[in-house]
This record gives sequence, C-alpha cells and structure tokens, in this order.
Amino acid sequence: MFSVTHRDGQARRGKLALPHGTVDTPQFMPVGTAGSVKAIAPDDLSAIGAQIILGNTYHLLLRPGPELVAEMGGLHRFMSWDRCILTDSGGFQIYSLAAHRKIDEEGAAFRSHLDGSAQLLTPERATRIQLQLGSDVLMCFDECPPSEADRAHHEEAVARTTRWAARCKAEWERDAEEPALPATGGGRRPQHAIGPPGALFGIVQGGLHRDLRERHAHEIAALQFPGNALGGFSVGEHPAAMWEGVEHAAPLLPAEKPRYLMGVGTPEDLLRCALSGIDLFDCVLPTRVARNGLLFTRRGRLQIKAARYARDPRPPDDGCRCYTCRTFTRAYLRHLFAAQELLAYRLNSLHNLTFYADLMADLRAAIERGESRTFVERALASFREGVDAAAH
Amino acid sequence: MFSVTHRDGQARRGKLALPHGTVDTPQFMPVGTAGSVKAIAPDDLSAIGAQIILGNTYHLLLRPGPELVAEMGGLHRFMSWDRCILTDSGGFQIYSLAAHRKIDEEGAAFRSHLDGSAQLLTPERATRIQLQLGSDVLMCFDECPPSEADRAHHEEAVARTTRWAARCKAEWERDAEEPALPATGGGRRPQHAIGPPGALFGIVQGGLHRDLRERHAHEIAALQFPGNALGGFSVGEHPAAMWEGVEHAAPLLPAEKPRYLMGVGTPEDLLRCALSGIDLFDCVLPTRVARNGLLFTRRGRLQIKAARYARDPRPPDDGCRCYTCRTFTRAYLRHLFAAQELLAYRLNSLHNLTFYADLMADLRAAIERGESRTFVERALASFREGVDAAAH
Repeated sequence: MFSVTHRDGQARRGKLALPHGTVDTPQFMPVGTAGSVKAIAPDDLSAIGAQIILGNTYHLLLRPGPELVAEMGGLHRFMSWDRCILTDSGGFQIYSLAAHRKIDEEGAAFRSHLDGSAQLLTPERATRIQLQLGSDVLMCFDECPPSEADRAHHEEAVARTTRWAARCKAEWERDAEEPALPATGGGRRPQHAIGPPGALFGIVQGGLHRDLRERHAHEIAALQFPGNALGGFSVGEHPAAMWEGVEHAAPLLPAEKPRYLMGVGTPEDLLRCALSGIDLFDCVLPTRVARNGLLFTRRGRLQIKAARYARDPRPPDDGCRCYTCRTFTRAYLRHLFAAQELLAYRLNSLHNLTFYADLMADLRAAIERGESRTFVERALASFREGVDAAAH
Repeated sequence: MFSVTHRDGQARRGKLALPHGTVDTPQFMPVGTAGSVKAIAPDDLSAIGAQIILGNTYHLLLRPGPELVAEMGGLHRFMSWDRCILTDSGGFQIYSLAAHRKIDEEGAAFRSHLDGSAQLLTPERATRIQLQLGSDVLMCFDECPPSEADRAHHEEAVARTTRWAARCKAEWERDAEEPALPATGGGRRPQHAIGPPGALFGIVQGGLHRDLRERHAHEIAALQFPGNALGGFSVGEHPAAMWEGVEHAAPLLPAEKPRYLMGVGTPEDLLRCALSGIDLFDCVLPTRVARNGLLFTRRGRLQIKAARYARDPRPPDDGCRCYTCRTFTRAYLRHLFAAQELLAYRLNSLHNLTFYADLMADLRAAIERGESRTFVERALASFREGVDAAAH
C-alpha cells in the first residue's frame, strides 16, 4: 500500500495506494471540513492538483449526518470528488468545538455546537461513521489534551488512546469480514462505495513528553495499523518546540508505513517536518488565512489588503501557475477583498492551495535528487526575503 | 452597429457590434456591480456564455475609483473580462443607496453609503467616468423617480433627463474628437482602452404615464443616440403594470436601434418584454436570489433549503448544461446552503446565470423560427407546473 521510492536523510519520497488513487508523498491535504473545501469546487481541486483532501467526522456527523451521506453514495459521490479522502475521527473537534463534553472510558458525550443536541462518539461509532462516509483513510478515535495539560493528563490520554485504538481496529476489521450492508438498512459502508475498504491509521499522543511519545509510539506500532499519525502537535506550543518534538517523534513511527502529522501547518512547518520523515500533512491554514486576505508566495507572505498593492499590476506570485496568478493583479485582488466580494475568497484560496501543492511537489523532486535539505534552506531564505523585496 | 436579422411580431432577433465583441439579442446581462459578478469569475462567465456584463458606475466611483481603474488599463483589464461591458450612469443608485442627496439642474450631490464622503455626479462627470472605465455601452445620467412619485415629479424628471441627455452626448462627442489622454494625466479613456469608443444610450423615463413616455421617447429619439433604454420600470409597480407599460413604450423607441430595459427582471419578465421588442436586459435578481438559495429551473422556482431536497439525488434542473447541474445533487446543494458554505453562492449563481443565458438563446432561436409567442406561452406554462411536478 505504501512504498518509499527515495530516501534523503530522514526525508522520504513515497507512493501511497488508496481505494480512490495513489498519493505522492510528502503531500498536503486541503481541509474540506463539512464536505467542501471552503470556497473551492472539485474542479478547482483538480486544477490545483490535489490528490487527497480531508473531511471532518465531527462536522459531518452533526450536519448532514453520516446516514444521509451514505444514502447519497458516500462522501466522494456526495461532494463529487473522485480522488482520495481522509477523515479524522472527531476527537480533536470535541475538544475544540463541542460544549459540555464528558469523556469516560466508553467514549465522549458532548453537545453539538450547532443545535445543542446530545451526541456520543465512541471508538466504535467514530470508526463506523468513517466507514459510512467511505473514507480512503480512517483515523482512530483519540484523546488529544490541550497544550497546557499536565503530565498526568497526557499519561492518561496516551493510555486511553491505546485502548481506544484497539477498539477502533476491531470495529474496522469487522467491516472487512462482513459484506457491506445497504446504506439505508443501517449498514456500514454505502452501497455505492463497496470496494476495497479504507486504511485505518493509528494516532500517537504524548504532547512534548519524549518518554510518553516513545512509549505510545511503541504501543500503537504494536497494533500494526496500515499507517500512523502524530496527534497533539501544533496545539499552542511554540513552533520550534513543535519542530523538535516532530524531529524526535517521527522516526519512532514504523518506517515502512506512511506517517501523518495532524493539523500542521505553515509552509515552513511542512518543509521542516518533512525533513524529519513526515509524509502527510493537513491544515485549515492556507484556506482560512486566504479568507482573511493573506497570500503565501515564494518570497513570503503578502497581505493583500495593504494600501501598497492598490495599484500594483503584478500577480500575487509571478512564479505561480494558478488561475488567480495567471489572470489577476494584486490591485484587483485588493479591491475584491476590500469590497468583500465573494470571489476574493475563492481566488485567494485557489492561490494558497496551489502554493502548498507546488511546494510539496518541489520538495518531492528535491528528495528524489537527494537535495532536500538544501531545497528547504533556500525556500526558507526566500520566504524571509519578503514579497516586497521583489523588483517591480 | 445594430442589425435586426429576424422579426416576429414586435420581437426582434439582432446583433449588436461593440468594441469588445458582438452581442446576440435578445440578451441578458449579468450584473457585476463593483467589478465582479458576485461569486462568479471570468472563466465562469465564459462557461455560462455571457457576451456582455454590467458594471455600476456609482459603486466603481466610490471604490476603487475610476482613476485607479483607468490606470490599471480600464475595467476590462482590471477585472480580466475581455468581452463587452455596459455601465450604468449612477443615477439610479443615487436614489436607492446614497445619503443626503440633493438634485439640481447641475447634477446630484450626495454622500457615499460606504464612508459618508461628499460626492457630485453631473451628466458630464458620469459620462467621463464611463469613458475612463472603457465601457462598450455608456448610459446617460438620468433622474429616475420612485414608483410612488406624483405626475408633476415625473414631468420634471422627464424634462431634466432630456436636458441632461444632451449634456451627456456633448461630453461623449468631445471624447470622440479629442485623442484619449494618458489615464494618469486626468485624461478620459485609459491608455490601454484606446480604440473605438463605446456607444452612448439615451434613457426614456415617464413612469406609467403613457403620454409622458411618448413625449420623452420622442425627445430622446431626436438626440439620435446609438441605442435607447427604458428606465423607471420595475421600481415597485405590479408586474402586470410593468409588462403593459413596456408593451406600450418599447415600440416608441427607434426600431433600427437596440432597446434596453433597465433593471428587469424575472424569467417571465424577460420573455414577455422581449415579445414587446426589448433587446437587452439586466438584473441582479438571478445572482441575488441564488445567494438566498433560490434556483430557477425549466419547471419553475426551486428553494434549495426545503427539507424535501435533503436526500434528492437529482440535479436542480436535469435539462441544464451548467457545471452545478452536471456535477451536484439537490441534496448536496441543500447541505452547502444549510452549512453556509461559500461554494453554495458560486454554484447557485452559476446555475441561475446559465438558466438566464439559455432561456435567451432558446428565445432567440424561437424568434428566428417565427415561433416566439408559442415558445413564451409554453415556457410560462412549464414554469407554472412547478419543479416538484417532475417525475422522480
């Protein structure tokens, strides 16, 4: 399912075969929280060259509900995206969004942030929901403590996440043994999505405690998932602490399986952590900041609302192949953003996602050439130059 | 510039040659108020098959300002739209949006609804701004009384609009005589937009007073504009009163020149008024209601938020060629709208504008065949059937 074709230090260039296609790694996954990458249509994603996107189980559970998505043929058909989808388990959002949460060994009870309705997610239910959605990659239901949590809380979370991981795996294996039932009959995978089941990934927690990360990585590796993830990074700690934590933790995950760093991050985060051996990333950052007028470029960040762009006839990034850069000036994009035109959100998001996709493609090529460290150093230096350093 | 190729009763099929292309009439113009058809990019407009769009002088005057647009190469280059643009004169928006307006013979003083800044629009300035924008069709600066205005107000408005029309024409002709100056030097048309000047259209007011319409049509025709418009319809009166008013007023406009009905309207309005001899239409309706979840279909209106569409696997309109209908289900579109996903606004707008474009194309074909009245009767009957009357 996963083959590493090139190694360059800890960095790896690989191919991950999933039911809806092959993913070149290292790869960034745009986030399509509620069945839509915000402001971006599937044809935009194809133009960007996205190979895999992320859906949030928590959001899809609350609206429109996994039974409805299954009845409509699974998440791929529902949103008309025929390439790969990874879904998280909902664990993280229960901590960050839900109200009145109560966690015990059985699972997490909480109230919807949309309508206050009472909800329960257990390892079994989180897994079943992801099977109903028809995900290519399913994530184990985990407990992710906040960054300020004490060591005791992290120890508990690690132990519970291991026990829950075993329950997720058992539920996932049950699906492989039983034929998928019709979606409307309360079955697991949707009728239209019958086919090879998605891969279940384990999650390693432990915060910035190295011994806990080591212990947990060992426990999760023992459960032999098709892939493994690092959770609990980028939850409030300093970037340098995160980079060091990932540098330590990534090699603890089985080398022959894909490694996914959840919820990370900036272009710099991606480059640094790929050098530590991470294969997959996801983050709302490129689309969220796009909606706030921040564009990533090869020479760093560009705040499109700045007055100095009012009459700037250049594209955001003259090295970029995206529709936005091929078609529009900074002056026009600034006007759209100032006028709060809906088109601004799409054009800015299209650019940032293309920037992320191309950064990963360039990194993969550098790994193939054995020049990943030099590539990353040069890219980071170029980001620091500043976009306005470019000759007019 | 304008040739009528087919006549069918009062209805006409024509071709309008403008600096940025030829427009097939009858034609609907999507409204791009502030240099963007809301939620829709130029590539979407091309896919829709739009031949001409509308820009609002009032909005562009306030933000980003005509000097900036001229400096960026004119409105076409600024927004990356290489087909035709018609701009209104700002008169209507001064009545509907601006604060503290004061109209006298010189022009209209008002305060910006954005920042309260003091502004002055005169016939000369409204014309110069449209020359700076580089419009293919410019509109005369007019006075458009509200629907509840009394006859005396309409009489005044008609007389003033005629005097202002003569001043607009004089200003427009001055531009044709003088070479266009560099945009940055306070000149008229932007450097990049040097080429054949746009056509200036006169506007006939008079409300629902037939004698005023007749008198005003006579006065405006005498000024010999390249095209003429009916203003002051669809400003609050009953649709049937508007249809009757247009049926009376349209034939009063010169038959050999294009006739534009400003700010109209629904699919039914377009069909009925084209039968009365109207060639051009514009309205915010298809995009505005799209953002509120209303989709037009061959079988009438579809409120996408309705619960009955939650699990409906059909496209909004199975006869429609648009990206939305080719790609997505009502169930997904309902979910996007319920979740307030930005993508909903684009997909709904794309559909409604395609529906309008195709309705006009079908109407043009019917006029060519001499079957326009039958076509309109059948289309209206089909609208009344209701979208949910369609077999599942």
